[in-house]
Amino acid sequence: MKKSTLGDRAANGLMRLIVEHGYEAGDKLPNEYELSAQLGVSRNTVREALRVLASRNIVNIRQGAGTFMSQKKGVSDDPLGFSLMDDRRKLVQDLMQIRVIIEPQIAALAAQNATTRDISILDGLCNELEMLVHTRQDFTQKDMEFHAQLAACSQNMVMSNLIPVICEGITVFSSMVMEQEFEQTVKSHREIFEAVRSRRAADAQQAMLFHLLYNRNRFNEKKEL
Amino acid sequence: MKKSTLGDRAANGLMRLIVEHGYEAGDKLPNEYELSAQLGVSRNTVREALRVLASRNIVNIRQGAGTFMSQKKGVSDDPLGFSLMDDRRKLVQDLMQIRVIIEPQIAALAAQNATTRDISILDGLCNELEMLVHTRQDFTQKDMEFHAQLAACSQNMVMSNLIPVICEGITVFSSMVMEQEFEQTVKSHREIFEAVRSRRAADAQQAMLFHLLYNRNRFNEKKEL
Repeated sequence: MKKSTLGDRAANGLMRLIVEHGYEAGDKLPNEYELSAQLGVSRNTVREALRVLASRNIVNIRQGAGTFMSQKKGVSDDPLGFSLMDDRRKLVQDLMQIRVIIEPQIAALAAQNATTRDISILDGLCNELEMLVHTRQDFTQKDMEFHAQLAACSQNMVMSNLIPVICEGITVFSSMVMEQEFEQTVKSHREIFEAVRSRRAADAQQAMLFHLLYNRNRFNEKKEL
Repeated sequence: MKKSTLGDRAANGLMRLIVEHGYEAGDKLPNEYELSAQLGVSRNTVREALRVLASRNIVNIRQGAGTFMSQKKGVSDDPLGFSLMDDRRKLVQDLMQIRVIIEPQIAALAAQNATTRDISILDGLCNELEMLVHTRQDFTQKDMEFHAQLAACSQNMVMSNLIPVICEGITVFSSMVMEQEFEQTVKSHREIFEAVRSRRAADAQQAMLFHLLYNRNRFNEKKEL
């Protein structure tokens, strides 16, 4: 199965080309004809290579429009094999345990390392989250975006890719509704954001720790997922 | 690209079958004929589904021998998109930063949660690592196995899958030889192991923290990767 085909080898060549050129999420790649010339392989092999990179979420092939760098930045679907873990309740608890370990440190790093632009994006997300809460709408997606942006603020490239995987795992495998937690959600995120904005790393860390432990305790009190 | 094909749908059905049956790494799956009957799809579609799951490292197709549950437990190759990160030195530093954050906590959880069998496996790895060091052989692989087993000792399923990804990333992208660090390596791992064995969680945590910071400082002092 793992024998290296012409397409696999061309995929490696294409990866080098992508990394050397510094293509970023959303950028359009050269067309098949140009790639074929640059890689010195047939257009059929280029297509095979593109399919390999598409399956790894590195590129995104849009029929008729061309090939673009994927917004998923090469992070595979279900990268850590959650779907094979059959004890869903334990999976969610384990994911929460990881968040309790990692995210307070991320909040501290974010307070220390965030750029002005990072903070302005986090500001926007915090406001949007509050708006959703005040109008009693589902804020799950915006919540995840806030935590993902905080990871981006830390300037740790791996954290940026890892945190969305952890957060998404929790929402996918726990359908427990976060009902009645509107006010606490607003308060926690606002506290974390203000600490990051004013560069209070220790406060950011503690605010995140409180936020996560509060949610973990609520989860543990519930019987159902 | 992401339109759901017959093969994708059969792959989902096959996943449910695998999770419900509780197949584990190394287990042999029913043959194509049986799967075709159980899933109610053609053998061609079964083959397509198996290829999808093979590309996600869930199964392993051995020509002539059959299909087996992969030892990689559904963790994709390069799951977090390291190959797209072109600043290799920063990638290694970021990976090390994550280890410093996560692994001391893992060591503490391992001391608290490891089963007798877990500890006996860790014991074996610690001894093998020492043997390699004493005979001045490359101990990189055994080192990674020790840290992976420690993650398994924590009983956190996600940590078990995540730690090998982080450790492997460092060895793949940093070719810095760990020369002259033979004695320190033995001492650190022995200290961590003894703390885990005697259930001293706080000591295990501190021993791991020292081990990682020591290695990080050595890395930072070097100019080359």
